[in-house]
Amino acid sequence: MQDDIGIQRIDHIAIAVEHLDEAMALFERVLGLKAPHREHVAEQRVDIATFTLGETAIELVAPAAPDSPIAQYLAKRGPGIHHIALEVRDIAAAIAALRARSVEMIDTEPRAGKEGSKVAFIHPKATGRILVELVEPVR
Amino acid sequence: MQDDIGIQRIDHIAIAVEHLDEAMALFERVLGLKAPHREHVAEQRVDIATFTLGETAIELVAPAAPDSPIAQYLAKRGPGIHHIALEVRDIAAAIAALRARSVEMIDTEPRAGKEGSKVAFIHPKATGRILVELVEPVR
Repeated sequence: MQDDIGIQRIDHIAIAVEHLDEAMALFERVLGLKAPHREHVAEQRVDIATFTLGETAIELVAPAAPDSPIAQYLAKRGPGIHHIALEVRDIAAAIAALRARSVEMIDTEPRAGKEGSKVAFIHPKATGRILVELVEPVR
Repeated sequence: MQDDIGIQRIDHIAIAVEHLDEAMALFERVLGLKAPHREHVAEQRVDIATFTLGETAIELVAPAAPDSPIAQYLAKRGPGIHHIALEVRDIAAAIAALRARSVEMIDTEPRAGKEGSKVAFIHPKATGRILVELVEPVR
C-alpha cells in the first residue's frame, strides 16, 4: 500500500500526561483498559505506560526529569495527544527516502526507543504541524 | 482484555486540518500514504479523508462550514491531532456502562458517524483532557 518509506501500520498514539500513575489509573477506571507495560526511556527522560489494543497501542508519556522534552510540551500546551508513531520496515531506508524528498527531520539518524526499538521523528513543519515518529521494532 | 465498555481496537486517529485537499496531498507526498477514502459527514459539518493502515486509520478532518465544531477547534488551537476513536462492540451498552460509573459524556445517545457507524464522544473532562470517541461500525 505504501512506497519507499515502508510504512507498515500505526505502532502507537502517544499522549503527554503530567503524572503517569494518575493517568494510568484514569485510563483503567474510565475506559476499562488493563495491565499497561511500564518502561523508563532514559534517552528521552520519560516514563511510559503502554496499553496494547490489537495492532496499535496507546502510550501515556510523562516527564522523568524537569528538562524532558515532554515537560516543555506540557508547560506550553497541557496534557494532550502528542504524536503518532508509524512502524517502518527499515528506519535507515525510511530516513534516507524522506531526506531524498527534502522532508525535514528532527532525527537524521535513528536513536534508541522503548523495548529496543529504533526511532526517528519527522519535523512537524513537514507534516502540517503533526508530530510523526517512525519506529523500527526489534524483530 | 477489556471489561464492560467492550473496547475492541483503535478505530482511527483524527487530525484536524484547515484544507482537506492540501492536507491529503501533504500526507501522500511526505509519508507515501495512498488512496484515501473521502466522505462528507453532514451531521458534524466536516469533510473527512481516511487513510487505512491495517487495523487503525488516520483520518484528516476539515470543516465543511464555518460553524463546524472543527472550525472552532482550529481557530483556538490550530491544526493538530484532535481525537482518538475506539471501536466498541455495542455503543449503547458502552454509554450505559460509562454513565453507570459517572463518566461525563458529550453524547448520551449514539449519533451518526461516517459510513453508517454509530458514534459517541466522552467528555475530555473525564479522560484528563483527551477527546475520545466511541465507534460501533456497521457489521
